[in-house]
This record gives sequence, structure tokens and C-alpha cells, in this order.
Amino acid sequence: MPVGTVGSVKAVPQDVLEELDAQIILGNTYHLYLRPGHELIRSLGGLHKFISWDRAMLTDSGGFQVFSLGDLRKVSEEGVSFRSHLNGTSHFFTPERSMEIQIALGADIVMAFDECTEHPADRSRVRDSMELTLRWAGRSKDYFEAHKHEVPWTPESHPLRKNRAKDGAPADSSAPTQALFGIVQGGMYADLRRESAERTVEMDFPGYAIGGLSVGEPREQTFEMIAAVLEILPKDKPRYVMGVGYPDEIVRYAGMGVDMMDCVLPTRAARHGLLFTSEGRINIKGARYAQDQGPADAQCRCKVCARYSRAYLRHLFVAGEPLAAVLNTVHNLAYYLDTMRAVRHAISLGDNSGFLSGGARPERL
Amino acid sequence: MPVGTVGSVKAVPQDVLEELDAQIILGNTYHLYLRPGHELIRSLGGLHKFISWDRAMLTDSGGFQVFSLGDLRKVSEEGVSFRSHLNGTSHFFTPERSMEIQIALGADIVMAFDECTEHPADRSRVRDSMELTLRWAGRSKDYFEAHKHEVPWTPESHPLRKNRAKDGAPADSSAPTQALFGIVQGGMYADLRRESAERTVEMDFPGYAIGGLSVGEPREQTFEMIAAVLEILPKDKPRYVMGVGYPDEIVRYAGMGVDMMDCVLPTRAARHGLLFTSEGRINIKGARYAQDQGPADAQCRCKVCARYSRAYLRHLFVAGEPLAAVLNTVHNLAYYLDTMRAVRHAISLGDNSGFLSGGARPERL
Repeated sequence: MPVGTVGSVKAVPQDVLEELDAQIILGNTYHLYLRPGHELIRSLGGLHKFISWDRAMLTDSGGFQVFSLGDLRKVSEEGVSFRSHLNGTSHFFTPERSMEIQIALGADIVMAFDECTEHPADRSRVRDSMELTLRWAGRSKDYFEAHKHEVPWTPESHPLRKNRAKDGAPADSSAPTQALFGIVQGGMYADLRRESAERTVEMDFPGYAIGGLSVGEPREQTFEMIAAVLEILPKDKPRYVMGVGYPDEIVRYAGMGVDMMDCVLPTRAARHGLLFTSEGRINIKGARYAQDQGPADAQCRCKVCARYSRAYLRHLFVAGEPLAAVLNTVHNLAYYLDTMRAVRHAISLGDNSGFLSGGARPERL
Repeated sequence: MPVGTVGSVKAVPQDVLEELDAQIILGNTYHLYLRPGHELIRSLGGLHKFISWDRAMLTDSGGFQVFSLGDLRKVSEEGVSFRSHLNGTSHFFTPERSMEIQIALGADIVMAFDECTEHPADRSRVRDSMELTLRWAGRSKDYFEAHKHEVPWTPESHPLRKNRAKDGAPADSSAPTQALFGIVQGGMYADLRRESAERTVEMDFPGYAIGGLSVGEPREQTFEMIAAVLEILPKDKPRYVMGVGYPDEIVRYAGMGVDMMDCVLPTRAARHGLLFTSEGRINIKGARYAQDQGPADAQCRCKVCARYSRAYLRHLFVAGEPLAAVLNTVHNLAYYLDTMRAVRHAISLGDNSGFLSGGARPERL
């Protein structure tokens, strides 16, 4: 899922996201709450309508963002008090408040409010944090069940309805609502991860996320934690690892059974001139590309690779042109989305090429 | 002509410029010379190929840009010495050097090297400056005639050839070259303007520009100077006023017989949140637009107005999102290019609506 922090996948217009065949994008509750504000978005019909996006959307709970604020936030049983990174004003997020905001935003998938445990942390601290997340999951679910019909759209105006009709799917006449996913925590302790997963599954969410990873731990530890949790999460519900990763990581996790991932890496790296290609990462500002007439990635079929040379992309980046961010981001998203298409293709073929277990990506689908 | 300073119309991909039906864009010789350098662009096949643009291009002479450097430049009979605004390195532009660079860039229309006279300036200073520009025009032409076949493309690889073929026009088998336009100066003195025009026309260029306007003078004076010069410039050759203007100005000048104009206004204003609309200019950051679900301009048929609300455009701008520059620029260019389409339509109808003489723009073409 490309990340659209404040309601925009940075530098990419929505029609280009559609051309790239992005099926779902993510919005950050913390950022949208601060600016432009969830009440404004509710009054304008919800996030889909506000940003003009009639495909699926997911909002996170705000938990990870306030966790990232460090000294600006304070956690209690009730919730998290924090100061805005924009202007220092004080705010208080609780599970109920996070649900209220996410219902107002109206994304299709919303996330339970959790505490992202810091890393490293000792076992008793991780257990306490995990227990807090479990209590908050219960409170999130209770509030959500009581208020889930307060979404800013009606069955008739549901943002995905138009798309469903286009796809020839039967019109769904039942009242549409959001899907609330639970989040597994447990730090870097496999037994706590398993316990968190079991107790979250007992609460019966329509999908489950694995949070609190990619917080500075070694990659093999991330892998172990995901593996431990996947043994427990039901296979017939979406399983979502939050905040990962590099292209080889998302292939590996998908091969393990992960269905959803999000990461700012393709978009953020693009704005720093880092391009993902079938030959590895390249830093486009390198002098070696000054006269390189080839595309960013000879294997890529995106519109940027079809039209522009590395020499031109390098020039745009070095000259500080705003077009650099646009073109680099379009390419990186194409690379990531192509990677996931290759994953789906490999799954449909039973992975006879070994792609999902670390083999080379098939050259063409 | 949208301005593409360093080989990119800021924030807009080339395919979007094509969708907007931009027929020609401008590049700045001064900027391209400094970065990435004309020799690099020559080695990559010229500017069209470098930026992937197979429609017409024009490069200015660099004269206006070095004029804008103020204390960083020094003018002599031979040329202008200046320091780079990027890193302070010393450079020297002469008419011959400007031609050499512009031939290396390979745009379809190139401009004689001129001195843009400062404003205000007294009559004797303006006369001296005008005489210098006339001598430089002669030197520009001499160098150009001797070197015009040194363009970075061949008849077969000419960047416009593909487009011509698409349009069904007969393939031009003669060796393609560039068109060198002369530039009229003369400050704010109508008689000097006329003399400059007469003596430039005597040199027989394939097109003529009026330079040294929009340098701080009142609009009526700009109008008077253009009117004085247009009496003299041949009607059967392109007449180009450099560096103008607001939408109502370009309509007025077109009505007077001006064929070409360029201005950074639509693109630069867009990046500052200023949008041109059929109801006048709006500053999208205004709080009044926070809940405005209407498009930037209800009369506009561009893809931005078709999809996004003022509320969303305001949010993007206030949040500092890179997409703000992209969408605002696309809209402003659409507004300007639509204005010129309305001008051409009015001309074809004999302007029976009075649009070209200050009447309202026809609502639909």
C-alpha cells in the first residue's frame, strides 16, 4: 500500500496512482487529525471524497505516530497525551478517540489503537505494553461496534460502490461499514508475540496486523517475529505487517503468507533520489548517470522508464526541480506494485520458479 | 509558451504538457548552460531528446537572465561577464557564445543576444544600449549563419519530424535548421523602439521579438511600446513579446497582432498558491476555501478541475504537499492555454464577440 500521509501519496496525482493500478492507499490518522482535521473531512463526505479516490483506503490508529514523537508524548492507561509536531498544541488520543476520528475519516479499513513498544525493551516492559495494547484493542472494538454506522457516507454514496459497479460485481445493498483490524504486539519475544496473537484473535477481528516491527531490530528478528505470529493468525483473514519494507523483504513476507504491507520507503526514497530497480538500488544523483541514456530500469514498463533517461532524471534531481520527486516516485511505486504483481503471479502458479523463497523475480509476467 | 527553465516546466511531466496541448515550450540558455551544460546536452542529442519532448522549443539568448544578475554582471562591447548565481564561478557571454550554446541545445527557435535595458533609463543610455543590441544582433546572425548546421540532430533524427509525420504533413527532406529571431529594444521611447524595429527588420530575421518590457513600467507604457513596434514588424512573420503577462494582457496583445508570448507567471504563481480562474485570481490558501467543494474554476475543463475540490487544493497547499505545485500548475497552464485557444477561435471568427478588444471571454469554444 502506497502511503498517503495527509491524504496525498506525495507528489503523485490520483489518476497516476490509478494508472499504476494501486488498489489501496494508506492515510495517517495523526496527520489528518492535525491537518485538515477529521471533522472537516467528515463534513466533506469523508476521506475518499475529499481526496477524490474511489478505491480502497486504510487509516492507521495514530499509535505509531504518537510513539514516534518521543518526548512530546506521555502514555497512561487511559491513552496518550502528546504535543503537535506542527505547533506544540496539546492533544489526547484514547482508543475511543482514535476510533471516533477514523470513523469520521471513513476509510475502508481502520486500525485498533495500540502502543508500539520501543526497541530495545526488557521482557516485563514488553509484557506490560502488550497487555495495554490488548486492553486498548477491546476498548477500540467496543467503541467501534457502538459507532460504526456513523461513517460519513451512506450505502448509496459509498465510495467503493462506483468501482464495484465498474468491475461488474453485484451491487451490495447492505449498509456498508468499515473493517476494524486488531494489532499484534509483543516486542522481540516470540512467546509474547504468540500470546498477543492468540488473545487478539480471540477478540475476533476481520483482519490482523503485526505492529511494532521495523523499529531498529535486525532483519532476521523481524522475520522470526512474523513467522511466530503467522502460525497463529487465521489464514482466511487478511494478515498485514505494518511499516515494511525493502522489495526483497516484501517478497519474502508475502511468501510466508502476509497479505498486506505498507511502507513510506518507495515514496520517501524517491524524494532523496534513490531508485529501486531490477538491478538493485541506484542513487540517481551519481555523476556516473550524467550521460546515461538508458531508463532508470530497463526491465520496468512504467511511464517514467518508457520516456525518460537516467541522465534527465539525474539532471532534474541535481537541479532541485520539483519534477524529480514526481518522476522518481512514480517509478518507485511502479517497481513496488510490479513486485506485488509478480508475487501474486507466483502464488497463482504455485511458485514453481522459487521467487517467493528467495529466487530471482520473473523477468516478465 | 510555458516556461521550462532548466528543461522542465516546473512540476509538470511532459505527457501532461501534451495532454494540455502545449505546442511549444521555452528553455533558458543561461540556466541550461550552467546546469547540466550545453555540451552535455549536445552529446545526448540536443534538448528535445534530453527532455523527451518532440514538439517545438525555443531558447532565449541568456541576455535577460544575465541582466537580472545585477551586480554579478558587467557589460562591455564584446559581451557580458557574469558570475554564476549557483556557485559564483566566472563566465563570459558574447553574441557568438550565446549562438554556440543555443545551436548545441538545438531548440527550434533561438534568440539573438541582446542587452535588456534597465528601467528607468534616460534617452542617451537607452540609445547606446539599443545600438549595442543592434551590433550584437548582427554578430549573432553572422555566427548563426556560419554555424547553423552544427545542430545536434540530422534531418532524419530531427525531433519534430515524428510529430510532423503524425500530423500527416509532408515529410520535409531539406536539412532542418533553427530559426534565429531578432530582438527589438529601445526602452520606453517610442521613437527609439521604432528605429530599433526598422533596423532589426533590415537584418531580415525569420521572426522578431520585442524585449525589454515588463521591467517595472506601467502597463499602459508596455502597451504603447508594443503598439509602436507592431506598426513596423512585418505581419507575415512571427511577432513575439517576451516575458508577458497576465491573462487579460495576453488577450489584448494577441488582439493587437502579437503571435507569441512567454511568461513564468502561470507556473510560478501556481507554486505560491495563486490560481487563475474565469472569475479572476484566487489565493487557494485562504480559509474561505477550506470547505469549498467546488473546482478551482467551474468554467475550466482541465483534469484538476474535473477531479479535485478547492478544499483539497487548499489542504495540499497549506500542508506543504508536493502535489500542490503539480495540480496548481496544471490548472494554471490549462487556463493560459485555453485563453490562447479562445484567442485563436476569436480571430478565426473575426472577433465578432469583441473578446480581443477587451470583451468577456467566450464561455465555451
